[in-house]
Amino acid sequence: MINFRNDYSDICYPEILDAIKENLDQINPGYGVDDHSKNAEKLIKEKLEDENVDIYFIHGGTGANILGASVGMVAQESIISATTGHIEDQEAGAIEACGIKIETIPTNDGKITKKLLEEKYKSFTNEHHTVPRKVYISNTTEVGTLYSKKDLEELYDFCKKHDLYLFMDGARLAHAMANEKSDLKFKDLTKLCDIFYFGGTKNGLMFGEALVIVNDNLKKNFRNLQKQKGAMLAKGFVTGIMFERLFQDDLYIKGAKKAYKMAEKLAKGFEEKGYKLAYEFESNQVFVEISDKDIKKWEEFAYFEVGEKREDKFVARFVTTYKSKEEEIEEFLERI
Amino acid sequence: MINFRNDYSDICYPEILDAIKENLDQINPGYGVDDHSKNAEKLIKEKLEDENVDIYFIHGGTGANILGASVGMVAQESIISATTGHIEDQEAGAIEACGIKIETIPTNDGKITKKLLEEKYKSFTNEHHTVPRKVYISNTTEVGTLYSKKDLEELYDFCKKHDLYLFMDGARLAHAMANEKSDLKFKDLTKLCDIFYFGGTKNGLMFGEALVIVNDNLKKNFRNLQKQKGAMLAKGFVTGIMFERLFQDDLYIKGAKKAYKMAEKLAKGFEEKGYKLAYEFESNQVFVEISDKDIKKWEEFAYFEVGEKREDKFVARFVTTYKSKEEEIEEFLERI
Amino acid sequence: MINFRNDYSDICYPEILDAIKENLDQINPGYGVDDHSKNAEKLIKEKLEDENVDIYFIHGGTGANILGASVGMVAQESIISATTGHIEDQEAGAIEACGIKIETIPTNDGKITKKLLEEKYKSFTNEHHTVPRKVYISNTTEVGTLYSKKDLEELYDFCKKHDLYLFMDGARLAHAMANEKSDLKFKDLTKLCDIFYFGGTKNGLMFGEALVIVNDNLKKNFRNLQKQKGAMLAKGFVTGIMFERLFQDDLYIKGAKKAYKMAEKLAKGFEEKGYKLAYEFESNQVFVEISDKDIKKWEEFAYFEVGEKREDKFVARFVTTYKSKEEEIEEFLERI
Amino acid sequence: MINFRNDYSDICYPEILDAIKENLDQINPGYGVDDHSKNAEKLIKEKLEDENVDIYFIHGGTGANILGASVGMVAQESIISATTGHIEDQEAGAIEACGIKIETIPTNDGKITKKLLEEKYKSFTNEHHTVPRKVYISNTTEVGTLYSKKDLEELYDFCKKHDLYLFMDGARLAHAMANEKSDLKFKDLTKLCDIFYFGGTKNGLMFGEALVIVNDNLKKNFRNLQKQKGAMLAKGFVTGIMFERLFQDDLYIKGAKKAYKMAEKLAKGFEEKGYKLAYEFESNQVFVEISDKDIKKWEEFAYFEVGEKREDKFVARFVTTYKSKEEEIEEFLERI
Repeated sequence: MINFRNDYSDICYPEILDAIKENLDQINPGYGVDDHSKNAEKLIKEKLEDENVDIYFIHGGTGANILGASVGMVAQESIISATTGHIEDQEAGAIEACGIKIETIPTNDGKITKKLLEEKYKSFTNEHHTVPRKVYISNTTEVGTLYSKKDLEELYDFCKKHDLYLFMDGARLAHAMANEKSDLKFKDLTKLCDIFYFGGTKNGLMFGEALVIVNDNLKKNFRNLQKQKGAMLAKGFVTGIMFERLFQDDLYIKGAKKAYKMAEKLAKGFEEKGYKLAYEFESNQVFVEISDKDIKKWEEFAYFEVGEKREDKFVARFVTTYKSKEEEIEEFLERI
Repeated sequence: MINFRNDYSDICYPEILDAIKENLDQINPGYGVDDHSKNAEKLIKEKLEDENVDIYFIHGGTGANILGASVGMVAQESIISATTGHIEDQEAGAIEACGIKIETIPTNDGKITKKLLEEKYKSFTNEHHTVPRKVYISNTTEVGTLYSKKDLEELYDFCKKHDLYLFMDGARLAHAMANEKSDLKFKDLTKLCDIFYFGGTKNGLMFGEALVIVNDNLKKNFRNLQKQKGAMLAKGFVTGIMFERLFQDDLYIKGAKKAYKMAEKLAKGFEEKGYKLAYEFESNQVFVEISDKDIKKWEEFAYFEVGEKREDKFVARFVTTYKSKEEEIEEFLERI
Repeated sequence: MINFRNDYSDICYPEILDAIKENLDQINPGYGVDDHSKNAEKLIKEKLEDENVDIYFIHGGTGANILGASVGMVAQESIISATTGHIEDQEAGAIEACGIKIETIPTNDGKITKKLLEEKYKSFTNEHHTVPRKVYISNTTEVGTLYSKKDLEELYDFCKKHDLYLFMDGARLAHAMANEKSDLKFKDLTKLCDIFYFGGTKNGLMFGEALVIVNDNLKKNFRNLQKQKGAMLAKGFVTGIMFERLFQDDLYIKGAKKAYKMAEKLAKGFEEKGYKLAYEFESNQVFVEISDKDIKKWEEFAYFEVGEKREDKFVARFVTTYKSKEEEIEEFLERI
Repeated sequence: MINFRNDYSDICYPEILDAIKENLDQINPGYGVDDHSKNAEKLIKEKLEDENVDIYFIHGGTGANILGASVGMVAQESIISATTGHIEDQEAGAIEACGIKIETIPTNDGKITKKLLEEKYKSFTNEHHTVPRKVYISNTTEVGTLYSKKDLEELYDFCKKHDLYLFMDGARLAHAMANEKSDLKFKDLTKLCDIFYFGGTKNGLMFGEALVIVNDNLKKNFRNLQKQKGAMLAKGFVTGIMFERLFQDDLYIKGAKKAYKMAEKLAKGFEEKGYKLAYEFESNQVFVEISDKDIKKWEEFAYFEVGEKREDKFVARFVTTYKSKEEEIEEFLERI
């Protein structure tokens, strides 16, 4: 079976396991104040070319979203998200469980544009509404599209003018930056968001996301919040070791580039065969419209997910990873 | 330096890492529905001699406590805990962040007795109070004491008579069962609690706790709750592999027994040298009253934590683990 | 100035104030267990022809919505509402502040139909979503439309088949029942909802709503919830006296009928003059599409609210009440 | 029967009902932006000799406590209260339902002293604890004692040095100021708290508390919070009219002084007859230790509440109000 199910079906890069093994006999202080965590923070800051950020290692994406959404919010404040946003659509009410309303914007491609945000913002006219205080975006989005540097500049600029924090879910940020046409660089990131994270789970770690807090207002007492939300592992040094390794040798971006190449081959293959992509191809998730018959047939030799119905077709998702092989893509395209 | 700081300073048993390595090339479905997780569940059920429980693997202790405390609770219901209870004293408001009030009982030894519970229960007289619905205990407790089978029978019996759930925090449950004098067996557990967990973090895993739901009322839609609280790892199979290994070859209890032996040696040593134990010695945490001078001296060759002051002495905590060595204990006792 | 602004601009029916005055020298027990409250409950039960309900007097609509939405819900459960639903659109995040996600359905006329509910219900496919447990409807809706007996039967039937509670916001329930074409009777109500309320604020009381709990599952420990949400007045007997009076002499429905008559006259007048109603006329709220110029002119002699823009027109809302006078409607229609 | 049950058994001062009646034919804008509310705010500001405060009229004590406790708090922050504090002991988990942990201090007399606060504050040593951000006190306290001007100065000073807000529950603030020995003046209040309220419910209104926000940090978007917590009545002008009247002719303090005089007579009477007061007499609540036999006998001619047991006696509470009559006190003292 060829695996296009998702990018979290593997355990981890062998390099990650090796790094853990090397340190097996060590004794480390708990809760993330160990040397590995500190070194991983240092490596990330160097990558970002920014010393002035706080970095925390979180055990997973929902945890990172809970923290990113709840940090710095008082009771009457809300967070704006696309209706397709992970926090709105895929977190089982995790944000609302923190008492926070998500105010939603319907979009065509999973992206909040400045224009859409502007219109939404205007709708908060009185005390019968929440006070919008934060904007959540995912990059890449849940439908595989990505925000360009310009997109982010426009959003961030609007946010700064209206006292809004911009929170970027980076579960697949590596994949956003792996697109050859992407103009987003590491050093741009801390100039375009107030808080964001580098996803590890979907990029070759056993688990873990590196949350980067840029805005000083959001830094205060963050460790208490991290603990409260169950997002502070006692053995934080394990996550530290993994991120320490991920941010060496370009491991963070290397696998994502590989995944991108494979997705590109796959997307082109679909189009050459006359299939219609459901969203523009821009990253390691390829969405394609296929018939009921296709689904049945393809499921014999590949794993993939099937989503919403569009007229007589279904939108199927094919995800590539650092583990995807050129031969697999070719074999798959041949058989369909 | 001799390490008595805590039982989560190591990465994990080498056996655990080996098990992960063996499966490195596998592809597994996400979110805990993989074969490793299923097999781990099976092994635990066998140990418990009870097929009729639901088991979930959680990433850490705070997560397990959040889930155990919040499951099945409606808004007006509260949870009763000792004032020393981990959820009251060490979770940074995690339970209250779920909207749940903790109703506290002061104790001498960290244990809620039937008598104490009875008195507390009577204080909920009208609608100006919460409705107590759950009782939280830790076994071993935060001060190293343990609940005997009879203690648990009395508590559980009271709970059943008053429509209360009994939730046992088992972060150090292995250590409770490792005490030679302990009469608590695996097969007793599902007859004495409504929900509890087997701690992995403090017992040789990289992370992870196995939450066991006994009471049918608490089982419904649990996976949605797990997701909501950020406690469902995408790569749940990693936790699955670890628990699969932990519940083979008695690995779960073996290390705890080793830790107990070492703690026993240490506790005896303290007493022989005229030191007073702050709480009865019953598990791998030894609390001893020492002077300011002792602290300064001992810190030169050992890691340990210092807590509350009692008159002119301080209560210091010495924790042993599966990694503690007989020679270390001897060396330590010699030098003090 | 002619008042069409809303139905909560007056203090109360003179009869209500008289009833309070009559009891001014009384001493009553607090928190709603007084004789006036008990008598009011009795009168309402008689009206409903149902002895088997629990009734609580709440200080206002948001309070009643918070209680109706949060009662009986565990953490992973959500409430379904139209996007125009008051709890989604006009309560400043009050429901989410209780930790509960609102799952929304867009509608054309503010009404959730069985078909819409069916489709929405199917979208909850896995643990990444909340578990829908309750359906919220307003009758009359926020846009003045109303649910017929048949509409409610279909919804309630669907709810019962899928373990959903049906919660009806009755802030304007009197107005729903005042429509001559309405086939909804008092005795139907407890057969068609699990919980609902009779609004007092928008129907001639100084404040207060009477929450009726039909489903036994939602009755347990309700007073504790009421207290927790700040919805239990110390002087509950004041609300009791008001509802005791409101449910005598048909006062509850009399004013609503008057308001309906006036609204009907107004709606007909608009249509005769060639104005387009924005929603079907069915109750004391009349929504009409008017130009910018109309707004400016009409504001000189009448109070009314202006809402969303539809192409070059605005949707203006005209609300009639028990205080509206035939001459006022006539004068208004003449002047526009 | 002589009524010592509580100070919320009456409907209201006749003057209050008259004020409502006078305005019965008025039309007012909703949600507290009417002229009566504005005038009431003006009168209170004059009394406080402070223009620079924001004032909101809330429907009841629990509502005022929910708002005062939750305003300005982010997730990891907690509120410190005496274990006897109303928010800890009598609000059915209302504060925790907002996600906020209450950190408690045991006291002898219901009062948090600077020393007690200092000690408690020191216990928040790391990220496993919440971050204390607010201190809650009640004046008079739940056991009838009161804070002197000096007490408040010390507390407020400590709070300012440690970035804590001081929130004073003033449900019985009139009674605190009615004590002839009290040195607390209206003009002191805004110099000694960050937020507090003037209780109306226990001081002759039908319902309602006037919340005064002193600290600028707590003022932002308060109306949204008020709405969210169900504490914004549609007919806010009713509360406005009541407070407008209460702050004319010294009505606010007059009744409290009457109540104080009556309580003083009662307390002296108890002592003369050899009864022991359970707490120092300082306001309109008199706590006295009586036997089981006394209870049975006295209940034949008076209403009062019986609380905790102290050895072989019970602590009974006798509350006087503006309605208490000298003859009643005399008659009562004679009969016991």
